[in-house]
Amino acid sequence: MPLFKKLCIVGLGLIGGSIGLAARRKRLAREVVGLVRRRESINESRRYGVSDHATLSVEEAVSDSQMIIMTTPLHAMEHLADAIAPCAPEGCVITDVGSSKRCIVNAMEKIFHPRAHFVGAHPIAGSEQSGMRAARDDLFEGTPCILTPTRKTDKEALKKVRELWESLGSNVSLLSPSDHDRIVAAISHLPHILAAALVNSLARMPRGAKKILPLAGTGFKDSTRIAASPSDMWVDICLANRGEILRALKNYQIELTLVKRALERDDVSGLRNMLQRASGLRKKMR
Amino acid sequence: MPLFKKLCIVGLGLIGGSIGLAARRKRLAREVVGLVRRRESINESRRYGVSDHATLSVEEAVSDSQMIIMTTPLHAMEHLADAIAPCAPEGCVITDVGSSKRCIVNAMEKIFHPRAHFVGAHPIAGSEQSGMRAARDDLFEGTPCILTPTRKTDKEALKKVRELWESLGSNVSLLSPSDHDRIVAAISHLPHILAAALVNSLARMPRGAKKILPLAGTGFKDSTRIAASPSDMWVDICLANRGEILRALKNYQIELTLVKRALERDDVSGLRNMLQRASGLRKKMR
Repeated sequence: MPLFKKLCIVGLGLIGGSIGLAARRKRLAREVVGLVRRRESINESRRYGVSDHATLSVEEAVSDSQMIIMTTPLHAMEHLADAIAPCAPEGCVITDVGSSKRCIVNAMEKIFHPRAHFVGAHPIAGSEQSGMRAARDDLFEGTPCILTPTRKTDKEALKKVRELWESLGSNVSLLSPSDHDRIVAAISHLPHILAAALVNSLARMPRGAKKILPLAGTGFKDSTRIAASPSDMWVDICLANRGEILRALKNYQIELTLVKRALERDDVSGLRNMLQRASGLRKKMR
Repeated sequence: MPLFKKLCIVGLGLIGGSIGLAARRKRLAREVVGLVRRRESINESRRYGVSDHATLSVEEAVSDSQMIIMTTPLHAMEHLADAIAPCAPEGCVITDVGSSKRCIVNAMEKIFHPRAHFVGAHPIAGSEQSGMRAARDDLFEGTPCILTPTRKTDKEALKKVRELWESLGSNVSLLSPSDHDRIVAAISHLPHILAAALVNSLARMPRGAKKILPLAGTGFKDSTRIAASPSDMWVDICLANRGEILRALKNYQIELTLVKRALERDDVSGLRNMLQRASGLRKKMR
């Protein structure tokens, strides 16, 4: 039996489109409806099969939905939520996929309470690709998804959002919005910024980045892949979580200073210790 | 027709073993002989098919070889070269695969000249795995390989080393040893250190790395994969090229300061500019 009669996905980009593809393939809802911004997206969504039906109308999209998933960029979310709230069916579940949670959860709870139940969610999945055409029905298989309930969160709504993400193949964890923001700053936002800084630093070399990049191997490619992600989305994310990113950056810079000092002093055991610790920790992830 | 009658590979780890597998599959030599350090490696090399024959004897391994490829760790190279030099056939070609070139090339030219012709080489290929069992016959396909000739380099020897690497599937470039060291510091050695620092920085978080790592997505995994590499090898590499790594680190820290300042000041356009530049550069690599 499907989890929902009608599932509404707000925004059909990489994440929204992948949820739609997977929900349709797994028959999680009788109907998957997409709310889109551009008229062209209606035809595109048919072509890619990311929803049963797509519309520009907020009312048409959300009416009778048991669950509404907001997948739009962070800066557009509040504004859109204001438009959705009056049309949202009484008691329906609203969730999101935003990469930064404290501000969003706070705002959404205010906008939707008490008519509908908001539960914050952040699937840690994606790719440096973007847009509907990059959507994949297995994007979430085996990936972490963090839900961020608060004291105000409705237990039943939380259960439904958990069921949704588990059905999509994610490993669900619960964290408070602020723990989420702290941890994700360290494992996602900071790494993104560091990869960008590393790529940009090549432009400071005498030969310039263009001559150097072809010489890079898979190590460099892997370690900077995330820097190719859409920059606008990341500007949003970085600014929404800048406090925690700066905190994570501080920890990172302590490590960087240690290794710099070890290099400067030709300190074999200091360097070995540092590389061994990292190798041991990293090997625990597969 | 094979390029060589006898090809000698000194050390049958990930790189040496992969050269052996590929050379045998592509019939680049009538005979591929491996010089190994441990008796067990003789049987192992038979099992994995990385050489036609493996031996503990320097003399047996190098005699009659047209080309000798040294694939041992940097710290063992000079010592081993001293043992090989007296047995090396007159006029044979010696090459290596070391990640740092200025010191090595200088030392090797002294050790082998004029009896044999040394040509420095650095295939930018590998994996976080190590050892013979990780060897793959396609490890070098489509990867960069930098040769580092000097004024003393024999033209014919350079041609043969180029032929070898092109036959193994690499895209060959020529750089001076010092240009090599500068560039590779920026695209390989520094990224390695940064990945290690990033992984270690997680241990400084209140929840500790073990609780945080399972929440990391493919972005973090990709960007830190190289940190899982064997640390001993990397201690060697970092110390051999520490001057250039410190120089590359300086460029990187300039970029890091820029982004930190943009975050601190909530500078949207500064941050966007930085992320856009990086995204544009990184997208040029595929």
